[in-house]
Amino acid sequence: MSGLADGELNRLAAEAIAALNERGLTISTAEATTGGLIGHLLTEIPGSSKVFRGGVAPYANSFKRRIGVPEDILKEYGAVSREAAEALAIAIRGRGETNVGLAETGIAGPTGAGPERPAGLFWIAVVDVDGVVSERFLFESDRAGNRRECAAAGLRMLLRRLQVR
Amino acid sequence: MSGLADGELNRLAAEAIAALNERGLTISTAEATTGGLIGHLLTEIPGSSKVFRGGVAPYANSFKRRIGVPEDILKEYGAVSREAAEALAIAIRGRGETNVGLAETGIAGPTGAGPERPAGLFWIAVVDVDGVVSERFLFESDRAGNRRECAAAGLRMLLRRLQVR
Repeated sequence: MSGLADGELNRLAAEAIAALNERGLTISTAEATTGGLIGHLLTEIPGSSKVFRGGVAPYANSFKRRIGVPEDILKEYGAVSREAAEALAIAIRGRGETNVGLAETGIAGPTGAGPERPAGLFWIAVVDVDGVVSERFLFESDRAGNRRECAAAGLRMLLRRLQVR
Repeated sequence: MSGLADGELNRLAAEAIAALNERGLTISTAEATTGGLIGHLLTEIPGSSKVFRGGVAPYANSFKRRIGVPEDILKEYGAVSREAAEALAIAIRGRGETNVGLAETGIAGPTGAGPERPAGLFWIAVVDVDGVVSERFLFESDRAGNRRECAAAGLRMLLRRLQVR
């Protein structure tokens, strides 16, 4: 497991919902690897329905294409890439008709890893009216820990984008 | 919180992934209230990508319409109804191109509750090649507990449908 303290994920989610609420912004999420953990954390907060409009967990590539990730991006860069993370964030922001889109794609491990995509590799992207930012992470935990680290990193990126921290 | 024992949700998810795997079946999920908890639990299991193709967490009604829930159903029966749960399950099974679709819609509370839709009310539906089954639940926990009870109930319905229990 990761070194994330108990309650840290819930604290970050509560902070994110509060910050979005204060700014009158809505959000949607695309979780290619965490499978719904970020959506779960955000909707655990009472009143989150004011800002969270919906999420997708596009595990299969067919699902990623269906929500609007171009086939070319998956073919050329792979599903775990900066390009795929940004395309996911842009696609879900458009589909969800929200101000902000948050997306991640990675390898939780132990399955799915390879020489060029080690377990723990994640790309996270946040897009809003000002454009898209993305970041690469290499977590060194187990499957469950890597997924939690990714959720925490995504929420922290969102908070930075909202200029909370 | 609910009376769910620690680890029970993870155990149910592992059992579901194993049963789907054994039967060569794929699944997709639509979580209108749990926001991604079921997808998170399923994808926490290593190798789940063989059977879990993707999920959606359609919090806003616009999101429910977008994945294929007819406007008429939301207008006539409301978003928390047998009809909406079944429409969500059928829609996600079609969109996800999977053998099985699992969907829930409910009121986690404390916000969103009303005289005809008390906190803790959930409808859960499972659809496969043989048709759709749905069930009504009224959980008596708090927000976090009701969401966990719903995830457990959904996984148990899935296991019954797969004739595991």
